[in-house]
Amino acid sequence: MENKMNHEDFMRMAIELSLKNVNESLGGPFGAVIVKDGIFIAGSANKVTATNDPTAHAEVSAIRLACEKLNTFDLSGCVVYTSCEPCPMCLGAIYWARIETIYFANTKADAESIGFSDKFIYEELDKPMHSRTLPVVQLMRNEALQAFELWETSPLRINY
Amino acid sequence: MENKMNHEDFMRMAIELSLKNVNESLGGPFGAVIVKDGIFIAGSANKVTATNDPTAHAEVSAIRLACEKLNTFDLSGCVVYTSCEPCPMCLGAIYWARIETIYFANTKADAESIGFSDKFIYEELDKPMHSRTLPVVQLMRNEALQAFELWETSPLRINY
Repeated sequence: MENKMNHEDFMRMAIELSLKNVNESLGGPFGAVIVKDGIFIAGSANKVTATNDPTAHAEVSAIRLACEKLNTFDLSGCVVYTSCEPCPMCLGAIYWARIETIYFANTKADAESIGFSDKFIYEELDKPMHSRTLPVVQLMRNEALQAFELWETSPLRINY
Repeated sequence: MENKMNHEDFMRMAIELSLKNVNESLGGPFGAVIVKDGIFIAGSANKVTATNDPTAHAEVSAIRLACEKLNTFDLSGCVVYTSCEPCPMCLGAIYWARIETIYFANTKADAESIGFSDKFIYEELDKPMHSRTLPVVQLMRNEALQAFELWETSPLRINY
C-alpha cells in the first residue's frame, strides 16, 4: 500500500494551518509546512499576534521549528509549502535556510486584497540604502570592522 | 548631570555584542540594539549557529527580544543600531516591526569581504517569482483562498 504524501497533501496541511489560525482567532490566515524527502518535518501558522513577534510569519516559524527538530540551521534538501507567496523577510529566511523549492497557493495580490501588502518592502529594497523612506544612517564603521577582522581567525568560520 | 546616551553609545553596544560573539566563538560577527526614546530596550548578537536558527540574525533576534520586553509586535517609535547593514530578511523584519530608523556601521561590502554575502538574495528578489533560481511552484490557490475569505470577518483583523 502506497502512503507517500504528494504535493497536494502537504499544501493541504499548510492550508489547514491557515484555516485553523483564523477559525480559532489565533492569527493571520497563513500556514507553512517544511518537508524533507517526502516526509513532514514541521508546520506553523502565522504567530505574530499570538506571540508578539513580528518575525513570526508562518514560513519563518515553520523554519525555526524544522531546524529545532532536525537540530541544524541548514535545511538543505527541504522544501516549503506555504499557503501564500512569501514576503521578502520570509524569502530571505528561506534562502538563508537553504530550502530548495517553494510551493505556494495564494498570491501576493490575493494577500493584498485582504489588507496584507508587502509591496512597500519590495519598493524599499529596490532603492539604494540611503534613498529609502526609512531613514538609514551610517556611523562608526572603523570600530565595527574589528569584529570582522576577528572573524577571519574564528574557529566558527568553517561552519558557515 | 547628563547621562543621556547618544548614537555612538548605542552603536558601541551593538559593536561590543558583535565582538563578544566572535571572541567567545558564539556566532557570526554581528550585533544589534533596539532603542526607544533614547532608552536601551534589547540587544542581541547573531545566534544562527548557537541556536540552530537560520533566522536568528542579530537584528531579528534583537527585534524578538524587544517585542518580548515591550509585550507588543509593534516597535513603532523604536530605532535599531546594527553593527552591519541589514540583509533583506532583516530589513523585512525591521519594516514589519515598524522600526523607524536604521543606524548601521559595517557595509554589505565589508560583510562580503569576510564571506557573508546577501547579494544572491537581492538578485533573486529582483526577479519575478517564477524566474528565480530557486524553483517556485503554485498550486491549490482555490482551496487556500478560503482562509483569506474567513479573515474578512475575523475579530483579529483590527489588530493588524
